Amino acid sequence: MQRLAEGILCGDLRALARGLSIVENRLPGGAELLAAVHPARRKALRIGVTGPPGVGKSTLVDRLAAELRSAGETVGVLAVDPSSPFTGGAVLGDRVRMQRHHRDDGVFIRSMASRGQLGGLAPAVDDGLALLEAAGLRSVVIETAGVGQSEVDIVQLAGTVAVVLAPSMGDDIQAAKAGIMEIADLFVLNKADQPGADELERQILAMISLIPDGQPRPPILRTCALSGEGVVELLAAVRSAPARQPEALYWRRFLQERLGREVEDWLASDSGIDLEGAAEQIAAGALNPYVFVRETAQSLRTRWLP
Amino acid sequence: MQRLAEGILCGDLRALARGLSIVENRLPGGAELLAAVHPARRKALRIGVTGPPGVGKSTLVDRLAAELRSAGETVGVLAVDPSSPFTGGAVLGDRVRMQRHHRDDGVFIRSMASRGQLGGLAPAVDDGLALLEAAGLRSVVIETAGVGQSEVDIVQLAGTVAVVLAPSMGDDIQAAKAGIMEIADLFVLNKADQPGADELERQILAMISLIPDGQPRPPILRTCALSGEGVVELLAAVRSAPARQPEALYWRRFLQERLGREVEDWLASDSGIDLEGAAEQIAAGALNPYVFVRETAQSLRTRWLP
Repeated sequence: MQRLAEGILCGDLRALARGLSIVENRLPGGAELLAAVHPARRKALRIGVTGPPGVGKSTLVDRLAAELRSAGETVGVLAVDPSSPFTGGAVLGDRVRMQRHHRDDGVFIRSMASRGQLGGLAPAVDDGLALLEAAGLRSVVIETAGVGQSEVDIVQLAGTVAVVLAPSMGDDIQAAKAGIMEIADLFVLNKADQPGADELERQILAMISLIPDGQPRPPILRTCALSGEGVVELLAAVRSAPARQPEALYWRRFLQERLGREVEDWLASDSGIDLEGAAEQIAAGALNPYVFVRETAQSLRTRWLP
Repeated sequence: MQRLAEGILCGDLRALARGLSIVENRLPGGAELLAAVHPARRKALRIGVTGPPGVGKSTLVDRLAAELRSAGETVGVLAVDPSSPFTGGAVLGDRVRMQRHHRDDGVFIRSMASRGQLGGLAPAVDDGLALLEAAGLRSVVIETAGVGQSEVDIVQLAGTVAVVLAPSMGDDIQAAKAGIMEIADLFVLNKADQPGADELERQILAMISLIPDGQPRPPILRTCALSGEGVVELLAAVRSAPARQPEALYWRRFLQERLGREVEDWLASDSGIDLEGAAEQIAAGALNPYVFVRETAQSLRTRWLP
């Protein structure tokens, strides 16, 4: 692990790819690797891009990466597909992007897909971002398909979240749940040259008007990802958006989740509680599972807490 | 809670609806309610129905419910939408179904959608199923859209999972990830009267041929949900499918997850570990978060375990 850590810290992209496989798949050595690279990490600019299918997210992400690159920065693109046993979407997106950037070592592209990890994909993406920062990437774009709660959890690992909408969306966005408003730091009205753009902007403004006074109102940026129009302005808006949450709050949740997962591991094997026996009694109808959980948790509390 | 429990056990559907709101939203009293009704639960036939959008799942679920009802049974339909801040799909499905069954008290229809619960929607669905069984429903159909890992987790709460495909799917199912094979107890080839049905069946058979010898091979049932053809045979196949996993294994995972969640709650507030202080130190660059998690987990182990 030490050699791999050194390779990553030197910016060796093959070492980075190996490190990413380890943390994505929760292979042994991952925690050790993360601990070893953490001190040398430099916080990157993290841009989250999400939205319904078909609005041009991939093209927009491509343009953002090119713009960041033209400023001389190294850029990571994480295309995250938390799920979908039914489609191969993430793979397709990569192929298209690779054609554009394949000679450019300053753009590092990675797809991350769910493999049924315990705790979901968000912790693996979080660990992946840590490695990208350790490898010296100064900006990372995190793209998700925006169709699930898990996507929402993941895209919020970014400092700034752009929700992309377009006149081609079809459904009236008022059908969209309140979830959009909670995650959007800014709205991108892509394909702004198409009919329906003004009406869509009115609808977005109507949603924004529901935000209580005193809370920040997300700006709306118009873009045409195909031509590149509006992308420079979008990047400027991302850079000047206020921080999503205080960093200490992020770390507090991080610690609680990771410690919780460690403890859950021992509960099964080492705590002295006979889970197998209890499970068999429940299956036999001889034990109430909810009563068992309540009483066991209570007795652990009494035993463990000061 | 005791009165609400009694209402549910008497089959009062309004009490059931109230109980479901409590467990879905993790409101106080949920655990008490579940403990109170558990002893009187009778295991229901649980049928999971999943698949990509557009294959006719809702129509098929509707037909299954009608068939179960015609046999004199009370039926529950849970339409689960774990996510999607961007669409209102679950609501639409309900409206269509309600028109068909609204005069029939023997069919209870419920949509469950993610509200960002900690731990995801699967535990809430699990608790919901417990209440449906306590209310005396003898069969439950769990329908998910099949687009995410969370959907896979949820649909596996059913005893038997039917993966629905149709010639209208468009994408070659070879683009589908291995996830389908892991969850399918049987395949339903819906819209079997349409062109492309034979080719689709060949593709499904090709996937099935990859299953190692000794492991069960899912049958393929052809249906036309619109006409109802094949639905009686489908129900028979569901009833005769082997159990997904031993019941004790299900309860063991249940206990581990629920106990783990209790402990995670105390870690934040009562364990004597200063998570806030550690988070601030990490944000200031003065503490390595991965080292902190490792050392704290180790010291808890030493303190707590026998």
